[in-house]
Amino acid sequence: MDFLQQSFSVRFDYKVFFTTHLFSPENPAFGKFIEGEKKKDTPPKVFFVLDEGVVAHHPDLINGIRSYFKGFPSLQLVEEMIIPGGEQAKNDEALFHKIVAAVNTRKIDRHSYLVAIGGGSVLDLAGYAAAVSHRGIRHIRIPTTVLSQNDSGVGVKNGINYFKKKNFLGTFAPPVAVFNDFHFLTTLEEVDWRSGISEAIKVALIKDAPFFQWLVQNATLLAKRDMPAMQYLIKRCADLHMQHIRSGDPFEMGSARPLDFGHWSAHKLEQLAGFNIRHGEAVAIGIALDSVYSHLSGRLSREALDQILELHQVLGLGITHPLLEVSDDKSPLLLGLEEFREHLGGRLTITLLNDIGKGEEVHEMDSALIRKASEWLKDLSSR
Amino acid sequence: MDFLQQSFSVRFDYKVFFTTHLFSPENPAFGKFIEGEKKKDTPPKVFFVLDEGVVAHHPDLINGIRSYFKGFPSLQLVEEMIIPGGEQAKNDEALFHKIVAAVNTRKIDRHSYLVAIGGGSVLDLAGYAAAVSHRGIRHIRIPTTVLSQNDSGVGVKNGINYFKKKNFLGTFAPPVAVFNDFHFLTTLEEVDWRSGISEAIKVALIKDAPFFQWLVQNATLLAKRDMPAMQYLIKRCADLHMQHIRSGDPFEMGSARPLDFGHWSAHKLEQLAGFNIRHGEAVAIGIALDSVYSHLSGRLSREALDQILELHQVLGLGITHPLLEVSDDKSPLLLGLEEFREHLGGRLTITLLNDIGKGEEVHEMDSALIRKASEWLKDLSSR
Ligand SMILES: NC(=O)c1ccc[n+]([C@@H]2O[C@H](COP(=O)([O-])OP(=O)(O)OC[C@H]3O[C@@H](n4cnc5c(N)ncnc54)[C@H](O)[C@@H]3O)[C@@H](O)[C@H]2O)c1
Ligand SMILES: NC(=O)c1ccc[n+]([C@@H]2O[C@H](COP(=O)([O-])OP(=O)(O)OC[C@H]3O[C@@H](n4cnc5c(N)ncnc54)[C@H](O)[C@@H]3O)[C@@H](O)[C@H]2O)c1
Ligand SMILES: [Zn+2]
Ligand SMILES: [Zn+2]
Repeated sequence: MDFLQQSFSVRFDYKVFFTTHLFSPENPAFGKFIEGEKKKDTPPKVFFVLDEGVVAHHPDLINGIRSYFKGFPSLQLVEEMIIPGGEQAKNDEALFHKIVAAVNTRKIDRHSYLVAIGGGSVLDLAGYAAAVSHRGIRHIRIPTTVLSQNDSGVGVKNGINYFKKKNFLGTFAPPVAVFNDFHFLTTLEEVDWRSGISEAIKVALIKDAPFFQWLVQNATLLAKRDMPAMQYLIKRCADLHMQHIRSGDPFEMGSARPLDFGHWSAHKLEQLAGFNIRHGEAVAIGIALDSVYSHLSGRLSREALDQILELHQVLGLGITHPLLEVSDDKSPLLLGLEEFREHLGGRLTITLLNDIGKGEEVHEMDSALIRKASEWLKDLSSR
Repeated sequence: MDFLQQSFSVRFDYKVFFTTHLFSPENPAFGKFIEGEKKKDTPPKVFFVLDEGVVAHHPDLINGIRSYFKGFPSLQLVEEMIIPGGEQAKNDEALFHKIVAAVNTRKIDRHSYLVAIGGGSVLDLAGYAAAVSHRGIRHIRIPTTVLSQNDSGVGVKNGINYFKKKNFLGTFAPPVAVFNDFHFLTTLEEVDWRSGISEAIKVALIKDAPFFQWLVQNATLLAKRDMPAMQYLIKRCADLHMQHIRSGDPFEMGSARPLDFGHWSAHKLEQLAGFNIRHGEAVAIGIALDSVYSHLSGRLSREALDQILELHQVLGLGITHPLLEVSDDKSPLLLGLEEFREHLGGRLTITLLNDIGKGEEVHEMDSALIRKASEWLKDLSSR
């Protein structure tokens, strides 16, 4: 059949900056970044969307931003918008409409900036609104949680939940820049500090044994909320996630997988718990399960497994959950595996561990062994 | 400030096929295309979204598709959906939700196909729904109008109207394939046959003088709905649009412009007419206006201008519209120019003609001369 061939590549570049007190008058990087991008004669508009939880803990933030922008007369700050934070934000379609309506009334166009400040949930929601308004407004992310600074905020995905399904609507849309401001982390709730570390354990276990040993050695400091240790962790973890994106299949168009060790059961657990569990908490449990499975299936040594589970313990991360108990073939955990297989289009791909730092993709899991792993962890935690 | 650099390119490839009777049993290309893409063990689902106007004129289409798929047992045809065609489809948010809901209930995932059959409006709407569902379902376009076969359907954009603004929500999302089936064109209303030719005149005028001369020589045949002439036109025009996309800035992230000669006033006219005018009709008038302006500003010879206006006449395309008359500085046409300037972020970029086949980008237009051009065309058409 007669045809014309279309082929092209689209290049994406962005920097992930690391700083503290991004909007202090002595820190011109943010303003200079936007000024440097400016290609047009009129001052670009800058529209902030803020996480209510962040604003509550940083009451001077909005005034700080306003004074900061007085130092950049070539930029045009428009009225900001505050939206509720946490997973519920992604469940509420009205918030998506509210942001899109603000883009319209504030006349934000493709040369303007939508800057989102918040946890992974607010970033996913605001990033989606930015990606589809005018087919994509320039988007800057300022992640404020451990998880969003080391994983979700430095990547290329956004999304909202729909039909009670996680990220049912969303796009792949790289930001123009990410600013990780460590100062925000000082006000995190204990659970958000802790659970964000799961993503670092995940990526260390499948990719980077020295980083895992670093986590083991610094676990007590991290548990005590030591800031220099957390800064190192975030930067290393962000770097590993960013490397994976650029060296693989950034928009997941082929069969390459994102870094999702421990995530198949974590996704099911989040859903079973009605999302009243942090993503990072669920991931910690998912990591424990797949590590035990890796051991029971003869891949991972007992010594390595013990090191993983001890790290969880020092960091205060869970290893099991009543909702994941397996009593028969129809148990939710096993159904979760089938759903994941369907989600992947019929062929399962799961990462397991051959060693610390060595992930391996497998295409089958044994339900009897999953049950055994789940019981193993339940016994261990009740001891 | 400390940072990590992210840089990667994403490659997009797709073919635009040309055929007639795509779903006749003797034409296996469509089914074989999907089979050839198949990477998974389970049969990929194929979900058709059809333009009601097309179905009305091709009552055997749906049954034809069903029998066709019986010849491809490795593909899983799911229940199709019919949606109203024309611009109003893009104004109706409920239709977007209806498609997304169908994606959910029919369990269409990232390994499934959403195939849209219809005019540019249905393709823009269904393409948007496909692009944001699960962060992007594989999408195949089957354009059924002249305009969608030679321009909108072979490109990378989708969108719906919102807040009464054209394409306020949308994305850049290349399809996995496009199938141009010429047989659909036989049932087009006169206005859709004619007005789709505007985009060919547009691209010929700014890029390809020999193609323009071909249009002049074949104008009478085209006006008589000669099919071989139209097939040549569509293929050449699609090729020029596709070349522009790949050689420029496919996702319009920089300041490169799409092929939009004659479009600044056309967009304004569509809006003023409440979209009760075809895009192609408005573009024909916009081309006439900017051609006269090119002549009056000393760029384009009188001879070349006459050739353009005569082509319009033979093809039955309009050259003026009461809504574009200029009586003072606040006339809608001049406001339209200002809106376009704003839309571009403050700096105007307009294509004018230095000769047939030679577009030039300019950054200012003179309102007195625009008024003169508008009056010139009004006089001409009333003679
Ligand atoms: N896009 C991606 O690639 C990607 C990757 C992983 C996870 N995610 C998503 O990220 C979301 C989870 O994000 P999260 O873990 O950052 O939690 P979150 O965004 O849900 O925030 C949790 C709570 O912390 C509050 N908060 C945020 N920053 C704070 C601060 N500095 N001080 C005090 N309180 C603060 C919020 O208001 C909220 O109440 C999930 O929806 C998950 O699916 C996305
Ligand atoms: N995405 C892009 O890059 C891009 C580019 C240019 C234009 N567009 C958009 O395309 C839309 C216009 O598309 P269009 O000109 O194809 O018109 P259309 O889709 O609005 O269709 C016009 C009418 O023709 C009917 N129809 C379609 N195919 C038919 C057939 N084969 N036989 C009989 N009737 C048929 C439809 O039902 C409708 O009533 C506009 O919204 C315009 O903005 C998009
Ligand atoms: Zn995760
Ligand atoms: Zn057009």
